Parts: sequence; C-alpha cells; structure tokens
Amino acid sequence: MKTYFSEFIGTALLLAIVTGSGIMGEALGGGNAAVALLGNSIATGAGLYVLICLLGPISGAHFNPVVSLMFWKLGHLDFSKMLGYWACQFSGAILGIWITHYMFGLAIIETSEKSRAGSGIWLSEFISTLILLSVIRIGDQEAKDRVPMLVALTVTAGYWFTSSTFFANPAVALARSFTNTFVGISPSDVPGFVIAELLATLLLMTLAALQYKKTND
Amino acid sequence: MKTYFSEFIGTALLLAIVTGSGIMGEALGGGNAAVALLGNSIATGAGLYVLICLLGPISGAHFNPVVSLMFWKLGHLDFSKMLGYWACQFSGAILGIWITHYMFGLAIIETSEKSRAGSGIWLSEFISTLILLSVIRIGDQEAKDRVPMLVALTVTAGYWFTSSTFFANPAVALARSFTNTFVGISPSDVPGFVIAELLATLLLMTLAALQYKKTND
Amino acid sequence: MKTYFSEFIGTALLLAIVTGSGIMGEALGGGNAAVALLGNSIATGAGLYVLICLLGPISGAHFNPVVSLMFWKLGHLDFSKMLGYWACQFSGAILGIWITHYMFGLAIIETSEKSRAGSGIWLSEFISTLILLSVIRIGDQEAKDRVPMLVALTVTAGYWFTSSTFFANPAVALARSFTNTFVGISPSDVPGFVIAELLATLLLMTLAALQYKKTND
Amino acid sequence: MKTYFSEFIGTALLLAIVTGSGIMGEALGGGNAAVALLGNSIATGAGLYVLICLLGPISGAHFNPVVSLMFWKLGHLDFSKMLGYWACQFSGAILGIWITHYMFGLAIIETSEKSRAGSGIWLSEFISTLILLSVIRIGDQEAKDRVPMLVALTVTAGYWFTSSTFFANPAVALARSFTNTFVGISPSDVPGFVIAELLATLLLMTLAALQYKKTND
Repeated sequence: MKTYFSEFIGTALLLAIVTGSGIMGEALGGGNAAVALLGNSIATGAGLYVLICLLGPISGAHFNPVVSLMFWKLGHLDFSKMLGYWACQFSGAILGIWITHYMFGLAIIETSEKSRAGSGIWLSEFISTLILLSVIRIGDQEAKDRVPMLVALTVTAGYWFTSSTFFANPAVALARSFTNTFVGISPSDVPGFVIAELLATLLLMTLAALQYKKTND
Repeated sequence: MKTYFSEFIGTALLLAIVTGSGIMGEALGGGNAAVALLGNSIATGAGLYVLICLLGPISGAHFNPVVSLMFWKLGHLDFSKMLGYWACQFSGAILGIWITHYMFGLAIIETSEKSRAGSGIWLSEFISTLILLSVIRIGDQEAKDRVPMLVALTVTAGYWFTSSTFFANPAVALARSFTNTFVGISPSDVPGFVIAELLATLLLMTLAALQYKKTND
Repeated sequence: MKTYFSEFIGTALLLAIVTGSGIMGEALGGGNAAVALLGNSIATGAGLYVLICLLGPISGAHFNPVVSLMFWKLGHLDFSKMLGYWACQFSGAILGIWITHYMFGLAIIETSEKSRAGSGIWLSEFISTLILLSVIRIGDQEAKDRVPMLVALTVTAGYWFTSSTFFANPAVALARSFTNTFVGISPSDVPGFVIAELLATLLLMTLAALQYKKTND
Repeated sequence: MKTYFSEFIGTALLLAIVTGSGIMGEALGGGNAAVALLGNSIATGAGLYVLICLLGPISGAHFNPVVSLMFWKLGHLDFSKMLGYWACQFSGAILGIWITHYMFGLAIIETSEKSRAGSGIWLSEFISTLILLSVIRIGDQEAKDRVPMLVALTVTAGYWFTSSTFFANPAVALARSFTNTFVGISPSDVPGFVIAELLATLLLMTLAALQYKKTND
C-alpha cells in the first residue's frame, strides 16, 4: 500500500509543480515565454530532486509508466505491481492538475488547445524518453546516490533543448491535455507523444535484451 | 541561550533574504514580475541552504513556529523551549524586515496592502505547509545530510508552483504584513494563512499519532 | 568500441543541449538575449553534469579534442586512441547539430553568419581554454568526485564572463559553424577560435613538462 | 610562492567573473537590470564554487583582504604572509578588471561613475561582511567539505538581498572603481565600503577574542 501511495502522491505533486510553475511563469512573465520557461524548468528540477530523494526509498519514485515498464522488464517489479503503479501514476497525475487549477482559481476541468505535433517534435519526444530512461538505468547501476540530481538536471536541461520540452512520460502527457495553460497539450496530440515514448522504451528494452543475450552466450 | 540566538538571527536573516531579494527584483525587473520571482526564489533557496547548514547543528534551524510545534509534539523539544523558540522566531522575523527596509532606504514601519486571500490560496497554503513539514520530517529521519538542500529546493520550487507562494510559516506570514513590497501580505489576510498553516500541522500530527498508535498496538 | 561510442554520443548530446537551448531561448525570449543566455547557460551546465557523471566512467567524458590531446600528452591515452576520440568528437558534434535542427523544424544544413572575431574575443577563447583544461586537470588529480560539478559550473559561468562565450573546444567551434542560430559562429571565424584553443593547450602542456622536469631534476 | 600565485590568479579570475558577467548581462539584457543581475549572481556563485574547490587546498582561497586578516588574527596565517596575500589580492583584482575590459573591447583604464553610498548601503555592506566572514569561519570549523558551496550560495543570495550587492571585500571594492560598467563603484564611494567592511571584521574579531577569553577563564 505504501508504495502505491508514494507513486500516487509523487506523481500528483510532480504535475502540480510542472503545471503550477507554468501558470505562475505565464501570469507574471508579461509575454516573455523564456522567463516563464526558466521558472518552469528550475522549479521542476528542484521539485524532482526532492521527490526522488524522499520517495525513492519507498517506491523507487518512478512517477512514470514507461519507467515502471522498464523496471518490470528488468525484473525489479512484478507485472501486477506494474499495473498498480500505472493506475496510481495516471490518477495521481490528473489529480495534480485539478488541485493546481483549484489553487490558481482556474476551472477544474479544462482541455488544452496547445498544438504539439510534427515529425521534429515526435523525434524530440523519442530522444527525450531514450535519454530519461538511460539516465535512470545507468544512474541506478553506477551512481545510485546521484540519481535524484541526475534526473532533476536532465529534466531541467531537457525543457530547454528539445522541441517537445521533454515530457518523456505517458501519464504526464495525458494529464497535461487536461490543462489549457503554459504546459498543456491538445488531446489529439497525446497519442503521437505516447507512441514516441513507447517506441523509445521498446528500443531500449530490445537493446538491453540483446546485450544480456550477448553477455550470456 | 545559544540555541535561542540561532533561531533569532536565523529567522531575521531568512526574512532579510526573502524581503530584500523581492525588493531588488521589483526595483530592477522593470515590471516583469517573473524575473523578480526568479531572483527572489533563487536567493531564498540559496540563503536557506546556508542558514540550515550552519545553524542546524546549533538549534535545529527551525526558523518557523509550526516546525517547532511539530518537533515538540515528536518529543524533540520541551514545551518551554518551544515557547522560547516562538518568541525568537516572531521577533527575529520582524527585525529582519526592519533591517531590510533600512538597507534599501524605505520607511522602517510599513503595512502591506497586497491582498492574498481566497479558497484557492488557502488550499495552497495548507498544501505548502503539509509539504514543508513532510520534507523536514522525512528528511530528518531518512536523509539528514541532505536536509539543507531538500528544504532549499522545496522552497525554491514552492515559490513557483503554489498560488500562495509557499509561506508555510506563521512568523513569516506575520512579518511580511509589515512590508509594503513584493513579498508583502495585507494584515487582514494573515489570519487565513496562519489558520491554513495550523490546520496542516494538526493534520500531520494526528496522522503521526495514529501511525504511532498502530505501530505500538 | 564502448569508449568511442561514449565520446560520439556524449559530444552529440552536448551539441544538442548547447544548440537546442539556444534556439529555444531565442525563440521564446522576445529579443532579450540575456534571458536566452540564462536558459542556454543553465541547460548546458545541467546537461554537462549528467553527461560527465554517466559517461565519465566509460570514456573519461572528454567530448573535446584538446582535452583528449592533454590526456594523451599526460600519458592517459595512446596516440591512436586519441585519433579515434577526435573522429568521434567531430562527427558526434556535427550530428548533434543536425538532429537539433530536425527537432526544431529548421533546415538540416545551415551555415552560421554570426561574426565572432577580434583580439578581445581571441584572448577570451585562449583564457577559456586555459581555465577549462586547468579545471579538468586539477579536478582530476585533487577532487575526482567533484569533476562533473566543477566542469558544469565552469561552463555555466564561462558563458557569462567571457566575450567569446567559452567554446574552449575545436569540435564545438567547427560544429557551431553549421548552425545559423543563437550559438552559431561564422565558418571564417572558426580558425581564430581553434588557434586560440590550441595555443592555450600548448602553453599548459609546456608548463606541465617544465614542472615535471623540475620535479625530476 | 605557490600560495601567493593562487591568491593572485584566484582574485583575478573572481574579478573577471564578476565584471565580465555584469558586462554581458547589461549588454544583452535590453535595459532589464534584474535579468543582468540573474546572470551576474549565478555566474559569480558558479565561479566561486570552482575557484574555492580548486585553489582552497593550495592557499585557502581567501581572495579577500579581510578574510586573510581574520585568519591572521585566528593564528592560521603569519603577519608577513598576510601582507603578501594582500598584495596579491589587490593586484590580482585590478588585473582581472583589465583583462575583462580587453576581452570585451572596452578601454583598459576606466573610472566608475556609479554612486553607491548612504547609511542604508553602508549598513548593508557591514552586514554583508559579517555574514561572509561568519559563513567562512563557521563553515571552516563545522562543515569544511561544504565551504565552496556555502560561500558560493551566500554570495549568489547576497547580490539579491543587500542594497550594496554584497561586496564584502576591500580588494573587490577598490578594483570595481576601475570599471565603468554594471558592477562599478565610484572611487569616492570606495572608502565608505572599506570602512564598513573593516568595522565588521573588527567586531567579529573582538567577539571571537571575548569568546576565547571566556572559554579560557
């Protein structure tokens, strides 16, 4: 139970941080979206560091269905637990959006009208997911103590250097279609993001399986 | 004596950092409040890291009446010491505001006219306090070495993702009613903040008591 | 093979981070280049920390021909390996630019028109390279654990305090001539940068040789 | 010799970082001085972390006459060495300014016209010096490993929350009178800064002597 609650609350807080800081940046930034992105990316990195430090020892601090998928494939998580994590991540993500809307006096239920599509953006999302999963996996094996900082700084940088702004997370992609703010994504563009994220996960899992086979042959 | 002085001077410096960086950001930001909030949130996080690293070993570096309340309830602090800490925190906070006003050539005694009220903002303040106390308590138990960084980054992120900008501290709320600058809060809005902060503290203490009872049954 | 791949992919990602964050900052910054440089410098520092932490144990995380040159001279790398590293660094850097252009929907092949020349800028580039190589060498000997943070913060600061914006890397200089964006450099100005970088490397290597001779006399 | 060179080059680089990032911020910031101060304060903190990490083991990384004065008084440094450090710090600081002017294509010799005076600013400078020396002394005794980060974040925060922007260093104050840029200070205002800095140093040394006497009585 404690692990599920950790994934639920962690994903909810992650989405509150992402969305709330985007709303704040847009409200105060006077039309300068780069200033909004600075606040958004610094807050997200800072918040991720805290969430991973504190909830990592409890549930692994995945907050992301493709991270759970990878750890299931690697044998760190059994299948039913992965499904439970997914349920907590998707529901937590949406709750995080709703709470943020309430905090900022917005309508609870919104639908984003922000278009995020095209081959460049899909490639960006594919690369973002490859990077995030690689950082988590290599970090987990080689520098466990540094994982919170590594993931935090990966995402802070990712917001800036990818055209998709580094979602790399199907629960985040779905939830952000429910907010018509700085960080939103039109519902019709969610499938493109999720497919790119899944393809990247599949590629990494295939490479891992090949490497494993080669090592054991 | 040394512990009381540490709480007094630490809270004074915390308020000087919060208020001074707000004044500087507003003065230089040319009306772009997001840039002011960037300076304000980065300076506050940086300053908190230093204050907690250096004063933590002396007094625990609470700088916050509800943190002292929590540690009293947890048995880390006796009742009369908690009252002493409160006196130091409230008086230090106000002194910090006054010194900052003098540094920036403002009238020493001011009253804020900035409205911060409404159910969204009260929920935000309730959640901020839940987060701050949880970070401090879990950090204190599980990752003591990282507490200065955890608290610093929690507050830096909190300034951005909550509509109340993460006061989470009754001494801070009261003192900030005495400055008519970027970080002020109208005196009539202080009770709403303090009530939200106390309710969050009560909830956490009740949960802790239930958990303790369950463990010992 | 693994070390070459690490240098190739690391340099590609470094250039993607540098170029992508520059494009993002310029696109969103509404003509305020200082805000663009903030995003650019924070993202580059954050990304470098991650790349050096994760790829350092594999290949040393040079991502820079003059760093490989220095380590060859110091006897950490043999000559043919250095040539292999160079090939990976130059090709990776250019690939990083091209992928970034694709992500942001720009023409893949571009040529920069941004002039970066003059004695002040060449001195700046000479000093930048002296600083980068010294930080890497002293850090490597005295504070190995801190090298990722040291290099990251050196570059973040370097973007701000040098008039050449701290390239300090011939592969970076060449690759950035292929992007007509915020971080570009006109092809005709690349030789000036590379010569300044090589002179700084030569100076350091000569000093190291003299010091070695003196110690052993 | 090595220690003197470390103080000389470290102070020169510190001034290059402070001045260069100020020039860059002002040139790119389009009149928004808060954005310039963000770049200036982030670069200075980042640079200080690197300089203290790498030069601290060699010379103590004072880069500041009042820090050397404090360490002489505490018995860590003999009198003639302190005088040597002072010479290196003052000459290094001025050289750092001149090199920066050359890098940015400005006249080498300038005189600042920026007024920084008044009782609020002098109090600010007095408090800044008290804070800086206390952080260095307590950090040195209690958390030696964290000193580079503590000093870096103290200065980053200090730029924002003090009206004097936290010089806290007579060599820095003097050298900055030689640059008519963002970070300059009119020569006629230097004595006020230096007196405030010396008074703070005297106060701390007196308190330390009293405490020492009390402990040994």
